[in-house]
Amino acid sequence: MADQQSTKPARGTRDFLPEDIRRRDYVIGIVRSVYQRYGFEPLETPAFENIETLMGKYGEEGNQLVFKILRRGEHEKSGEADLALRYDLTVPLARVVAEYQGKLPTIFKRYQIQPVWRADRPARGRFREFYQCDIDATGSTSPVVEVEVLSAVCEILERLGFSDFKIRLNHRRLLTALLTQATIAPNHHADALIALDKLDKVGPEGVRQELESRGIPDPGRNAFVNWIGAGYSPDFLDRLEDHFTLLDDQGRAAFANLRSILTLSTASVRQRVRFDVSLARGLSYYTGAIMEIAVEGIGSLGGGGRYDNLVGMFLGRDVPACGFSLGLERIIVVMTERNMFPATIAQGAVDVVVAFLDDESRGEAMKMAAELRQQQLRVDVFPDASRKFEKPLKYASARGAKAMAIFGENERARGEASIRNLTTREQQSVPRSEAAARIGQLVNAE
Amino acid sequence: MADQQSTKPARGTRDFLPEDIRRRDYVIGIVRSVYQRYGFEPLETPAFENIETLMGKYGEEGNQLVFKILRRGEHEKSGEADLALRYDLTVPLARVVAEYQGKLPTIFKRYQIQPVWRADRPARGRFREFYQCDIDATGSTSPVVEVEVLSAVCEILERLGFSDFKIRLNHRRLLTALLTQATIAPNHHADALIALDKLDKVGPEGVRQELESRGIPDPGRNAFVNWIGAGYSPDFLDRLEDHFTLLDDQGRAAFANLRSILTLSTASVRQRVRFDVSLARGLSYYTGAIMEIAVEGIGSLGGGGRYDNLVGMFLGRDVPACGFSLGLERIIVVMTERNMFPATIAQGAVDVVVAFLDDESRGEAMKMAAELRQQQLRVDVFPDASRKFEKPLKYASARGAKAMAIFGENERARGEASIRNLTTREQQSVPRSEAAARIGQLVNAE
Repeated sequence: MADQQSTKPARGTRDFLPEDIRRRDYVIGIVRSVYQRYGFEPLETPAFENIETLMGKYGEEGNQLVFKILRRGEHEKSGEADLALRYDLTVPLARVVAEYQGKLPTIFKRYQIQPVWRADRPARGRFREFYQCDIDATGSTSPVVEVEVLSAVCEILERLGFSDFKIRLNHRRLLTALLTQATIAPNHHADALIALDKLDKVGPEGVRQELESRGIPDPGRNAFVNWIGAGYSPDFLDRLEDHFTLLDDQGRAAFANLRSILTLSTASVRQRVRFDVSLARGLSYYTGAIMEIAVEGIGSLGGGGRYDNLVGMFLGRDVPACGFSLGLERIIVVMTERNMFPATIAQGAVDVVVAFLDDESRGEAMKMAAELRQQQLRVDVFPDASRKFEKPLKYASARGAKAMAIFGENERARGEASIRNLTTREQQSVPRSEAAARIGQLVNAE
Repeated sequence: MADQQSTKPARGTRDFLPEDIRRRDYVIGIVRSVYQRYGFEPLETPAFENIETLMGKYGEEGNQLVFKILRRGEHEKSGEADLALRYDLTVPLARVVAEYQGKLPTIFKRYQIQPVWRADRPARGRFREFYQCDIDATGSTSPVVEVEVLSAVCEILERLGFSDFKIRLNHRRLLTALLTQATIAPNHHADALIALDKLDKVGPEGVRQELESRGIPDPGRNAFVNWIGAGYSPDFLDRLEDHFTLLDDQGRAAFANLRSILTLSTASVRQRVRFDVSLARGLSYYTGAIMEIAVEGIGSLGGGGRYDNLVGMFLGRDVPACGFSLGLERIIVVMTERNMFPATIAQGAVDVVVAFLDDESRGEAMKMAAELRQQQLRVDVFPDASRKFEKPLKYASARGAKAMAIFGENERARGEASIRNLTTREQQSVPRSEAAARIGQLVNAE
């Protein structure tokens, strides 16, 4: 035992023990069933991609957060990377849409629930390995897609028990119109959006400083910050358009697009929508409507939007696309804090534990287990003989079993089995031939 | 579109399209349900581990096949790796058992179904990213554990429809006894097992050459190859023990252990067991019984065994353990080739497609979709207006829908919906208020 080693998972990652998995499976089950009811099909892509596939898709900051895999064999010494871990589920989707064009439906609607990896500084609720639950539809520019995506996401959150969430909605081309109106030059637009994306963290004054440090001059800087500081009101969309004196066709189309999304949404979705001119979304690939789910006091549970040019980077011609990514980890953290999980997910891992008092009774115990499993019960055999059965009893209770079957010399001699009800602590001997049925009744009676 | 890029997944990895996922989910569903009925609970660990956690656990060859992750930020230039992708599910389990000792049941039975990564040369049915479906029980040296593990694996394969598989069974300490009997010196034992592990690929003569090239002298070399060439017969275990003139306590215990495993197994498992003195299993951490599932003409579908010292490398004191790993990819390849998947998994991805002929009908179409989804139907809205509905019709058929609802100017004027049965191609107009119920009947009638 010379080289005893650290037993912690790597920094920013977690082990999921059985109770954690039950919580995750509960949420993923609801996510999957709603996505399916909205006509989305499952897709999975490899954990790593060729490094060129990921580089240049997420902006400068994203590039630095990608985990890169060292070349192997004789090339290992070069210190070069040729592969990289998936950073999101959207770029792999774009690659898939380009690769399997002929094989996929004209409108490809997929969901994907897989981990992604980012070398971010770990913090409370922020991990280096975390699951995203994405839906995307490619092949249409219709606002019906945005509305379907938003509806699905709202239904998931409602089914999980969230009632107080809002949908922040904005449009990348409206942000362009806003920057134009504020007389910020086009070559500063990307920088301005990066600054705006930090609004939640640094506030309006922080954004102003960030704009300044990125060399964006006044009066544009000031005008822009004033615009994004405007509060929400139901008629804000109309009032804003009226104020835009420099609006071009694309800007007008952006306003019309947002109005279509609102009109087509059901009343229950529409009442959650907050048109929010300060929403930027970090990723550089968005081209149209952008959206984010926000919970008061919690922040974002996910976001998405339209990205009509990303598939084109792989295919050579554009395929329109729009999607949304739900953040599983944040949802689980909030649901745990708020006690939103149903009691049923805490149920025991097994129904019955079979124990034996001497090695000669092992065979009988294993036969019992086989009979009980044929009744579809979840059955565990305590593997070691123990004369007094305190150990298996303690173990059965730790595993949440409802019943225990016990075999020893006496039981074998009499052709019986001892059955213990772990709820009432009653124990009785029954004929061996009736034992399986009796235990089945006991378990199912609960 | 200057920089159009490769759209292939990285070498040795695959994208799983919806039809692939349905096959995988079918198999995983059965694996999971059987594992649960045998009392195993789910565990998941991170995709990467600290590199020290993995190094030195898989032997010399394994070390070379581990994917290593480059250090980040200012350290990236060093070309050093500090993390590595999971190579199997057993070493992470050993780390988990050491880390959460106080929190886990005395006997910890977990299943884990996750991908692992090995930088092997890709070949037919061999990938660099592949799923393993593992069960392991820690905390007991009882042969009951081996028998439970084997029973679960057999039940899974039977439920999947495999009838012609065998269980190859051997014991690491019996191999040690065999090497001793063949007068091979202890310092050559590890090398001899590496040579033996290649028997399936290179045959007995190849093993002999490998032994020679590793400096193992005759007559031991020759005696060893003669032993492993012995064929199977039901009483081989007894005959073998009789021949061992140099058997020590550990060797005798190995024979007794194998007999216990056979005795405790149900008849249906026992008849599949082939005691096979030529089975070595590649991984270096095994210490007791080793086993492998083999299908005639196909090779191995998985394997496992007892490893009583691995947890000790993390914990500082030994915790006995035994487990089995089913290879999902090979199982799916064989089941696909042999047409073993039920027809139901090829069913359509949606039940109903809702289409509209003009943009003014979009809202009505979306309302219809919402009503149908409340009936738990899987519903897709074709997002673009199309005057003649050939496009949505073709799309609905590609998605496997049974019914289509169509809205246009006429339907809206008359307060109706057009419903098309995609199986019979009958189409009729019904009052709008009855449309959802009628479609529900149509879909469920199938």
